[in-house]
Amino acid sequence: MTYCVAITMDAGLVFCSDSRTNAGVDQVSTYSKMFHFKIADERELIILSAGNLATTQAVVSQVKRDIRDEALTSLKTLPDISEAASYLGEISRLEQEKHSSVGGPNAGASFEASFIIGGQIGSDKPRLAMVYPQGNHITTSKDTPYLQIGESKYGKPILDRILNRTTSLENASRCALVSMDSTMRSNLTVGPPIELAVYPTDSFATTRFRYDDDDDYLRDLKKAWDQYLIEAFDRLPPLQWSDAQSPGE
Amino acid sequence: MTYCVAITMDAGLVFCSDSRTNAGVDQVSTYSKMFHFKIADERELIILSAGNLATTQAVVSQVKRDIRDEALTSLKTLPDISEAASYLGEISRLEQEKHSSVGGPNAGASFEASFIIGGQIGSDKPRLAMVYPQGNHITTSKDTPYLQIGESKYGKPILDRILNRTTSLENASRCALVSMDSTMRSNLTVGPPIELAVYPTDSFATTRFRYDDDDDYLRDLKKAWDQYLIEAFDRLPPLQWSDAQSPGE
Repeated sequence: MTYCVAITMDAGLVFCSDSRTNAGVDQVSTYSKMFHFKIADERELIILSAGNLATTQAVVSQVKRDIRDEALTSLKTLPDISEAASYLGEISRLEQEKHSSVGGPNAGASFEASFIIGGQIGSDKPRLAMVYPQGNHITTSKDTPYLQIGESKYGKPILDRILNRTTSLENASRCALVSMDSTMRSNLTVGPPIELAVYPTDSFATTRFRYDDDDDYLRDLKKAWDQYLIEAFDRLPPLQWSDAQSPGE
Repeated sequence: MTYCVAITMDAGLVFCSDSRTNAGVDQVSTYSKMFHFKIADERELIILSAGNLATTQAVVSQVKRDIRDEALTSLKTLPDISEAASYLGEISRLEQEKHSSVGGPNAGASFEASFIIGGQIGSDKPRLAMVYPQGNHITTSKDTPYLQIGESKYGKPILDRILNRTTSLENASRCALVSMDSTMRSNLTVGPPIELAVYPTDSFATTRFRYDDDDDYLRDLKKAWDQYLIEAFDRLPPLQWSDAQSPGE
């Protein structure tokens, strides 16, 4: 399993991903799911991946090959994030089809993968898109400033409560890390190292962080969050015992 | 969909359930999923239900009928929560089989239901059990003092962070309500009224609350929690920008 989240705000973009992959609980490995593409001085793109590892590796390799070989269509030439998402979706779809042809030895097997692609291209503002296994994609909206792939449910409530378009990059980064922490506690197949990338609007420079299992900052963050939550709990309005109803049924 | 959670602590038990049922998004109704059984002065039991509404209603009717008819085996006679859970599981399994017989017109259809049963019987300490659709059941442990049925993922992280055996009934109640609020925000098919039941150990008296959509207390609780979370966020240790890595691939 995987958990990746990307957030878009006026101030820029934040990306966060775990690094655990598994095929069954006894075949667990560590692979980065964050791929950073810096192209000239006017393109900064990040791809996050989830799903079948063979598919995501093949897709990312193809994307890199197209850049290296100066292909007509590549992350170097596509005019905006939406077309970059279509391009990524097409490669992903073709890669999946290759291995799951009807009637072949793998008929019925699933090699699905999802991606988030985001960044800034030229004078366009920073954008995010999520690419479905089927190759189509969606983007963020004013009301939903984030996209998730993989094990998304555990980490969603905190995003809904904290994020909006005016959130600072600092707060969005911490929110992504707390969302990741909630997911790791509840799903063993999501795990460190955690990668975080912060892209300030118009900077064309991404700052990346990598947190291992025993990272001091991550431990401090978890500990502080646990403590502040408990303090927040203690301050919540007390139950109104006068509202109690007489036992029925 | 449904979300129900039950918590066991040294101080007693807390139960919380939503009241929305749906068959598709355009067929939404309101039904209580919490059933309270007060039997003589030495038995206090609560059942929470999730899953197919026809199944859960049939099961609860049978449970009530067995009590009324003074059946040999009923919640009135069973010696402990574990046997009560087996009894409930058996009724549920038989009810499901009745309607999904192989080869019949409903072959392959699912009438699954899950239950949480908890309470105190005589001098035994208060206990909880969760009954699977297959009729078997599990109980809580020292490290996992709660059970959930239905849409459980969104509301789980807050339970993991707050609850343990020594949590007060007051805090567990608020934790259950916050967990419910997180779930309602993220899944439209979980909705009010919210029911809450609080059972203090050895009291043989359950206090029940019902919160409608526009309930003042629930609104205050949500608002306070949102505000305290944002305050807690602002206090979290700042990102260590010195940890940033040079952009790589």
